[in-house]
Amino acid sequence: MKVTVEAHPIQGLIKYHGLMDPTRRIPFHDSISICIEAMKTTTTIEIIKDLGEDEIQINDKKPQEKEKNRILTVLNELRTLSNCKDKMKIVSENSIKEGKGLGFSASGFAALGLAASKALGLSLDHITLSEIVRLGAGSATRSLAGAYALWYANKNGKSYADQIASCDSLDLSMVIVPIFSQVKTDEAHKEVLGSPLFVQRLKRIGVIVETMKRAIYLKDVAAISRLSEEDTLNLHATTMTGNDHMILWEPETLMVIKEVVAMRSEQLSAWYSIDTGPSVFINTFTRNVEKVASRIRKIGFNNIIISKVGNKPKITDKHLF
Amino acid sequence: MKVTVEAHPIQGLIKYHGLMDPTRRIPFHDSISICIEAMKTTTTIEIIKDLGEDEIQINDKKPQEKEKNRILTVLNELRTLSNCKDKMKIVSENSIKEGKGLGFSASGFAALGLAASKALGLSLDHITLSEIVRLGAGSATRSLAGAYALWYANKNGKSYADQIASCDSLDLSMVIVPIFSQVKTDEAHKEVLGSPLFVQRLKRIGVIVETMKRAIYLKDVAAISRLSEEDTLNLHATTMTGNDHMILWEPETLMVIKEVVAMRSEQLSAWYSIDTGPSVFINTFTRNVEKVASRIRKIGFNNIIISKVGNKPKITDKHLF
Repeated sequence: MKVTVEAHPIQGLIKYHGLMDPTRRIPFHDSISICIEAMKTTTTIEIIKDLGEDEIQINDKKPQEKEKNRILTVLNELRTLSNCKDKMKIVSENSIKEGKGLGFSASGFAALGLAASKALGLSLDHITLSEIVRLGAGSATRSLAGAYALWYANKNGKSYADQIASCDSLDLSMVIVPIFSQVKTDEAHKEVLGSPLFVQRLKRIGVIVETMKRAIYLKDVAAISRLSEEDTLNLHATTMTGNDHMILWEPETLMVIKEVVAMRSEQLSAWYSIDTGPSVFINTFTRNVEKVASRIRKIGFNNIIISKVGNKPKITDKHLF
Repeated sequence: MKVTVEAHPIQGLIKYHGLMDPTRRIPFHDSISICIEAMKTTTTIEIIKDLGEDEIQINDKKPQEKEKNRILTVLNELRTLSNCKDKMKIVSENSIKEGKGLGFSASGFAALGLAASKALGLSLDHITLSEIVRLGAGSATRSLAGAYALWYANKNGKSYADQIASCDSLDLSMVIVPIFSQVKTDEAHKEVLGSPLFVQRLKRIGVIVETMKRAIYLKDVAAISRLSEEDTLNLHATTMTGNDHMILWEPETLMVIKEVVAMRSEQLSAWYSIDTGPSVFINTFTRNVEKVASRIRKIGFNNIIISKVGNKPKITDKHLF
């Protein structure tokens, strides 16, 4: 039986950074994100008896060793639960293939986990599946929860994400500016531990997450967006003061930042947000989103995406093979 | 009598950031800088009896109100010491007029203070004059000291700078990339106090200054330059997490940073250093400096400057009027 799942990548509102347990991918602190409706990973899985090994194809390519191992960790966990050792054919496609820091590892592992669990005939509760997809990518927990999601570092001994507001409950939309980079963003989560600023981040992050939660409950789009911009700067400040002097921004990143700041000075409310990569999300009220997009196109970015907040992954019959 | 002084601007190696006493310009911590031989401010001063008010011209323009007040603070301090109330004609020129964060407020106030003190017939000891030019711009203390200079936040109740190594004692040269910006850098010193990272900076800065002092005594150019790059990232991380989300870099700043990182990966030793502005200094061994400059020209920066470490201000007879 083939199972196909579509999952949305995420934008971190309060970003996660650094893993307390890198193997089990348990973070140091809670984090909050939103799913991006206009972007998705589609993954089709079929269990094929007598297949020598798993056949995996992502964006028309075989995954590299490191990526493959992350995928096998999730698959093997599910196979153990289902008492099935059969190999699978897996084809996965992201809707956008350029740009770094767009949250596709989240949607990739959310889609993989849900599709494989269904293909294996499992009916897992949300928390168990969330804990399994987390082993592939921490943020997959939040992609799996959908909409506005809170990932708990530790809730009663478990680390998983819950949806805290539905996708249409707030007047928030975003403009996404994909930017290409050769920096290996996965490294950033390791080396941030060397930053003298990281301890300071950890001290304050609890209050920041609570402030963001409250802003979401109050449906205060401006407060959410401003807080996310602030957390962006904190995250990148912490990254660049790590051991390797890692700067994730590209010149284009700063071009977009400066244009957003200029918009604000002209009373067009918009706020930038940048995950662990150079690509920029611009959060704004839905009524502003076309104006914001047009400003960003004018400074030379033609491949931008306009999006609302997306829902949790869904099963579809549009199989990729 | 006309007095003309030439002073060199500075590059902060361990940058100063934030003022404990903004009026007297006393910083929170010690800092270390080098003078830039290839750049200078030239200032000519003449005391003119019966002049209604001071006539000041900087780079062919009258200074704005705020700048003028800073200048008058220094002049009036010196006039009080000399018991002379006469007004002055002052003409000052920077060798470069484009680019922000090039340290010209340091050379400007060092030249002004020395020229005015001489014009007034004063023979002040180094510490007293250092404390007076500090009232115009903190870094002027280091421009006045010349070469490798340490500015004490508080040494026996005084805040001034001393030369800690002569300009030719180390094999260090730099490439300067002036970059234009509209950001008011003076604001950065105020708003950094709002950064949650600033406390952390203050906790560690004593050790960092000591490490830099030791590297200078050991003539370890690589250690000096790497430490200066590290302090750059710490400074800008702290600035951008202040109340106003102030980012002092421009897209061009990141282009230069990335080229320097690329050079290092190709075994060409060079390190970037950025003061409170977007312009970039690239520190390297003197033997590398032409190669580094050529790499930076290749990515499109034609108005770059190559420099050795400069000496303290000198009196000259090349008057500007």
